[in-house]
Amino acid sequence: MQKKLKERLDVFSDAVIAILITVMVLELPITMRHGAVVYLQLFKSIGIYSVSFCFIANLWYQHAVTFNEAEQVPNAIVILDLIFLFFLSLIPTFTRLMTSATTNYNVMLYSGLCLIISLIFRMMTRTIIRDKYTEKSDLRVIYNIIYGANFWDSGILYLILIPVGYFWPHVVLVLLIALSVQSFMKHGQE
Amino acid sequence: MQKKLKERLDVFSDAVIAILITVMVLELPITMRHGAVVYLQLFKSIGIYSVSFCFIANLWYQHAVTFNEAEQVPNAIVILDLIFLFFLSLIPTFTRLMTSATTNYNVMLYSGLCLIISLIFRMMTRTIIRDKYTEKSDLRVIYNIIYGANFWDSGILYLILIPVGYFWPHVVLVLLIALSVQSFMKHGQE
Amino acid sequence: MQKKLKERLDVFSDAVIAILITVMVLELPITMRHGAVVYLQLFKSIGIYSVSFCFIANLWYQHAVTFNEAEQVPNAIVILDLIFLFFLSLIPTFTRLMTSATTNYNVMLYSGLCLIISLIFRMMTRTIIRDKYTEKSDLRVIYNIIYGANFWDSGILYLILIPVGYFWPHVVLVLLIALSVQSFMKHGQE
Amino acid sequence: MQKKLKERLDVFSDAVIAILITVMVLELPITMRHGAVVYLQLFKSIGIYSVSFCFIANLWYQHAVTFNEAEQVPNAIVILDLIFLFFLSLIPTFTRLMTSATTNYNVMLYSGLCLIISLIFRMMTRTIIRDKYTEKSDLRVIYNIIYGANFWDSGILYLILIPVGYFWPHVVLVLLIALSVQSFMKHGQE
Repeated sequence: MQKKLKERLDVFSDAVIAILITVMVLELPITMRHGAVVYLQLFKSIGIYSVSFCFIANLWYQHAVTFNEAEQVPNAIVILDLIFLFFLSLIPTFTRLMTSATTNYNVMLYSGLCLIISLIFRMMTRTIIRDKYTEKSDLRVIYNIIYGANFWDSGILYLILIPVGYFWPHVVLVLLIALSVQSFMKHGQE
Repeated sequence: MQKKLKERLDVFSDAVIAILITVMVLELPITMRHGAVVYLQLFKSIGIYSVSFCFIANLWYQHAVTFNEAEQVPNAIVILDLIFLFFLSLIPTFTRLMTSATTNYNVMLYSGLCLIISLIFRMMTRTIIRDKYTEKSDLRVIYNIIYGANFWDSGILYLILIPVGYFWPHVVLVLLIALSVQSFMKHGQE
Repeated sequence: MQKKLKERLDVFSDAVIAILITVMVLELPITMRHGAVVYLQLFKSIGIYSVSFCFIANLWYQHAVTFNEAEQVPNAIVILDLIFLFFLSLIPTFTRLMTSATTNYNVMLYSGLCLIISLIFRMMTRTIIRDKYTEKSDLRVIYNIIYGANFWDSGILYLILIPVGYFWPHVVLVLLIALSVQSFMKHGQE
Repeated sequence: MQKKLKERLDVFSDAVIAILITVMVLELPITMRHGAVVYLQLFKSIGIYSVSFCFIANLWYQHAVTFNEAEQVPNAIVILDLIFLFFLSLIPTFTRLMTSATTNYNVMLYSGLCLIISLIFRMMTRTIIRDKYTEKSDLRVIYNIIYGANFWDSGILYLILIPVGYFWPHVVLVLLIALSVQSFMKHGQE
């Protein structure tokens, strides 16, 4: 029974993430001024969309790799995954918030949301992976596939970015964007 | 043939529920006043969204567990499930209604909708489970997995809340929210 | 290869139909007048939504039953199914059109759209079913499962409703609504 | 593990494409003027929607056929497929842009987007197909199924259309529409 539930959870998660990644397209604005399209605004929006896209696509990949390790998951993981999807679904709104007004509070809110998502995801990964692999060397291999060799690409980074964002919001904005794109692209090289 | 139909019904239900749970994100408002984001309004909306999220995620879980019990379902269940999805799809609208204006009629309408969803779901559960288990002790175990040990977490509660909502709408609002969150979280402990 | 393609077509069709049936919820209006919700408008919209829901859910059921008969489908059916989805996706818009202004042209447009969808669906059904069953008695059984015993529940009806709609649009509106609900409910009894 | 990841990528891609193709329906306008629906505007929008529909449905078909060839895909293809979905998701917005204001820049932007999507898709196809077939004659057969016998239905065409669009945007608009519809319909004949 838990095996079937896990399969449905996979389909459900994929569907939710697919919707999250696509609804953002609906918000791309086509504004006309004096009979000409405002390209600057359109391309800025596409830029913001691409950052959210990388962030969510990256988590989809890590999520798929992690959950493929398990044949079945305990109930606590099912609930945790649904909570994970809840916070993930706030990413488009918070990205829009941060880019429409790059104030220190908004950048800190976004970093905080990334931290929460990152922590929930690590809790799920640990439970699933530790259940299957006990050998230390195996654990390192599988963690490398999910997160990459980069130590900094972890939740700790977001913890540091929150106070830094209070003083230099624009620096943190650039760092967050770079991090999303780099995490996503990295998986292609492995 | 009924087996394949049941599988497609599962995919279809999951897709509809995934869309329902995600479209609510589109309605999170980012309003600017005097150059600052109106946080109070945003966080109130996120709170309302989280309540609908818990209610629907809870039903997704119960739905998945129940339907995993069956290899195939009779036609009446297929139609009943589609009617169930119809009423479930009204939840985001009615949650918004109740929270934007907590009047006695709106709270009663929401309680009534919860009652209808609850009754349809119980009819489906009974048909599916009774088809498979005949032993009384087995039935109790499976009901416990789906609904939990809590007797009050049942349709009867909503029946009581409707008249109570006429006199104390705000009390019922808080009760309904607490019930949604508690039902959802409970599954993680089993 | 065609077998895998058919499976993906099933998932794709289910996803498109699930989205079509759910996006309509987004359009349910909550309008406030003098501090009170305009219930009449809301419930009228829910009524219209339920009609579209029945129409699309009915076709989903017939679609699922028909496509379950085939192990694989020829390319022509794949393309025909995509065209079927195109016209089906216009149903929410045309339902809204017909109910917001019940003029003779709008009712005729809606009947015409139903006729097109009905014809495309019958073409697909015939190709798939005739490929598998050759015995006349088998054919009648399978047609009965898909369409029900009702002869009138066929494309011919819409052909008659188009000219009638020119003279009595409101009569045809009621007939179309009754037909959608009755077709959908009927499957539960078989 | 890569096999399971590939299956999830298929479901995820299908879901994203299904959403892309359906959200466009939400934008069909029903405007009233002097109590009558503005049919011209509605039917023009349906026309534009049908072009985007053909373009995306065509790519869905080619995508499904290509990915059915592979049992598993390397990581680079997973990332490439996600980037493909990103650019594909811009098609509805750019179609709307091009048809709402058929200026030379907008037509060139649309042609450029088609070129990028076409190139990414060809890179994926080559990697997947070359991995499986080594015989030249086999390669030609499979390429024929995906792209059809038409040599012009390739990325090179878009490369030519970009400079042509600078001088004759309306000619290129008509060519792009004809190409989308013809590519899509062609698959039915094979």
